[in-house]
Amino acid sequence: MITRSDVVTAMRRIDGRVRTTPVLAAHFNTLPAPVALKLEYLQHTGSFKARGAFNRILAARENGRMGKAGVVTASGGNAGLAVAHVARSIAVEATVFVPETSPKVKVDRLVRLGAVVHRSGERYQDAYEAAVKHADDSGALFCHAYDQAEVCAGQGTLAIELERQAETLDTVFVAVGGGGLLAGVAAAFEGRVQVIGVEPESSPTLAAALSAGRPVDVAVGGVCVDSLGATRIGDIPYGVAVRAGVRWLLVDDEHVIGARQFLWDEFRVAVEYGAAAALAPLLSGQYRPEPDERIAVVLCGANTDLIDLG
Amino acid sequence: MITRSDVVTAMRRIDGRVRTTPVLAAHFNTLPAPVALKLEYLQHTGSFKARGAFNRILAARENGRMGKAGVVTASGGNAGLAVAHVARSIAVEATVFVPETSPKVKVDRLVRLGAVVHRSGERYQDAYEAAVKHADDSGALFCHAYDQAEVCAGQGTLAIELERQAETLDTVFVAVGGGGLLAGVAAAFEGRVQVIGVEPESSPTLAAALSAGRPVDVAVGGVCVDSLGATRIGDIPYGVAVRAGVRWLLVDDEHVIGARQFLWDEFRVAVEYGAAAALAPLLSGQYRPEPDERIAVVLCGANTDLIDLG
Repeated sequence: MITRSDVVTAMRRIDGRVRTTPVLAAHFNTLPAPVALKLEYLQHTGSFKARGAFNRILAARENGRMGKAGVVTASGGNAGLAVAHVARSIAVEATVFVPETSPKVKVDRLVRLGAVVHRSGERYQDAYEAAVKHADDSGALFCHAYDQAEVCAGQGTLAIELERQAETLDTVFVAVGGGGLLAGVAAAFEGRVQVIGVEPESSPTLAAALSAGRPVDVAVGGVCVDSLGATRIGDIPYGVAVRAGVRWLLVDDEHVIGARQFLWDEFRVAVEYGAAAALAPLLSGQYRPEPDERIAVVLCGANTDLIDLG
Repeated sequence: MITRSDVVTAMRRIDGRVRTTPVLAAHFNTLPAPVALKLEYLQHTGSFKARGAFNRILAARENGRMGKAGVVTASGGNAGLAVAHVARSIAVEATVFVPETSPKVKVDRLVRLGAVVHRSGERYQDAYEAAVKHADDSGALFCHAYDQAEVCAGQGTLAIELERQAETLDTVFVAVGGGGLLAGVAAAFEGRVQVIGVEPESSPTLAAALSAGRPVDVAVGGVCVDSLGATRIGDIPYGVAVRAGVRWLLVDDEHVIGARQFLWDEFRVAVEYGAAAALAPLLSGQYRPEPDERIAVVLCGANTDLIDLG
């Protein structure tokens, strides 16, 4: 479990390593007040994940836990890119395990960031297990994509930053996959700002966990699968979500696709589906703000194919 | 001619009508200090042109010069979109003349913004003359794409905004086509900040004018032709550039293409070629800043095809 204090520690630790991503005050015809769009997709490697990776890896280095074997993770997506970027920036080796089915374009991106990439097994779970084994065998630092305290606390630095940028804030919308971003933001905002986790109907990890009373596996699919397609929410995110009174909303693919296109058409902002999901409930009318409610939406990533936009 | 005072007046006039576009502090490995990227492509209709169009049209309305015939312009590009947007937002009619060669996608975009579109002649000049004639015949307010005092002063509001956002500023890079943005920014920053006009080698309107001692026609071409392809710099921009001591740099297509791709790869910012041009001299090493020089680059538009990015 993490608290705001862990996030504040992370803020100090990663200061100067990550970009302070700007906020755009966006007026929507259908909403009573402007919405603060947190443009976190402008972050290093195109997603918030650099925050958590920096915090995890720098904390380990501080504690003398960084050996010659460097760091290891399992992810062909945003988490892998972030870990590779962080490792390169502090000159340690990154090893990234991906499933054999990972497209060449993703592997190439990791290799360009200097990572050693291993293809292992057919499913993500196989790559994950190979990465954990590699950490055990080699002494490399294992970086989880979401379910580690330093990772979650690092993602939460986004919330402290946002707090400084937006004068007042009542409600913040965050997309949920494994829940690392949700955990960090909810811990930082606990007792201060209502956090709403938005997740695709096609992979409702938070809703399923809250309903079952514990993290449970869900089927995954839909347009957000690339970035939000975790099979279950992490234990830390689940615990923080319950403690902090996080609310949740489910969105369908059609509204996610519409929100992503809207962001391009109206703002020339090109984000991944998983990021657009956080805005969908406001655009569709599924969530109706109070007249004076101050809302922020985190646009958390843009590792996306542009071919279908504009 | 315009001065900073005209820009300040414009700032008050268009307040609340345009978006305050955020700034990203960007660190580059090859540069000694962070560069303030002014994300003006997030503006209404995807470019800075909404600022000038609002100022031109609201000023006319204040002065009782807005009749039932509404407004008219000649542009299938950013200026046309901006005028159509402004007209719709204050419920007057917009008539836009474009050449017969204008692609359907551009005409459709104008129509979606509520404009009445006329195709007239083969070249831009034909559409321009038809628009001027329409203004004379109908009494509609003619909105020039760059060479009117209110238009230039409106574009300059971006500079006042930037001044508030960036603590100190020595040098600002602005792309030049017809020169409306340059004129506004140079008038606002006169005696305060060095303005550098960046233009494509393939359409050097400012460099040619400064060399000839007056605005002269240039051949136009290259990747920026869509947004920076004016055949000559405006009289107002030329006058302001000379008075304010604006400097200029020419960039070739290869470096513009590289800068645009770099903005996507490193920042997930998708802009048009003409906007990327302003960053090219810093990336290529053509311009070498002093160690403590505080630089801003205006990313002025994103009406671009995304098919060739990421």
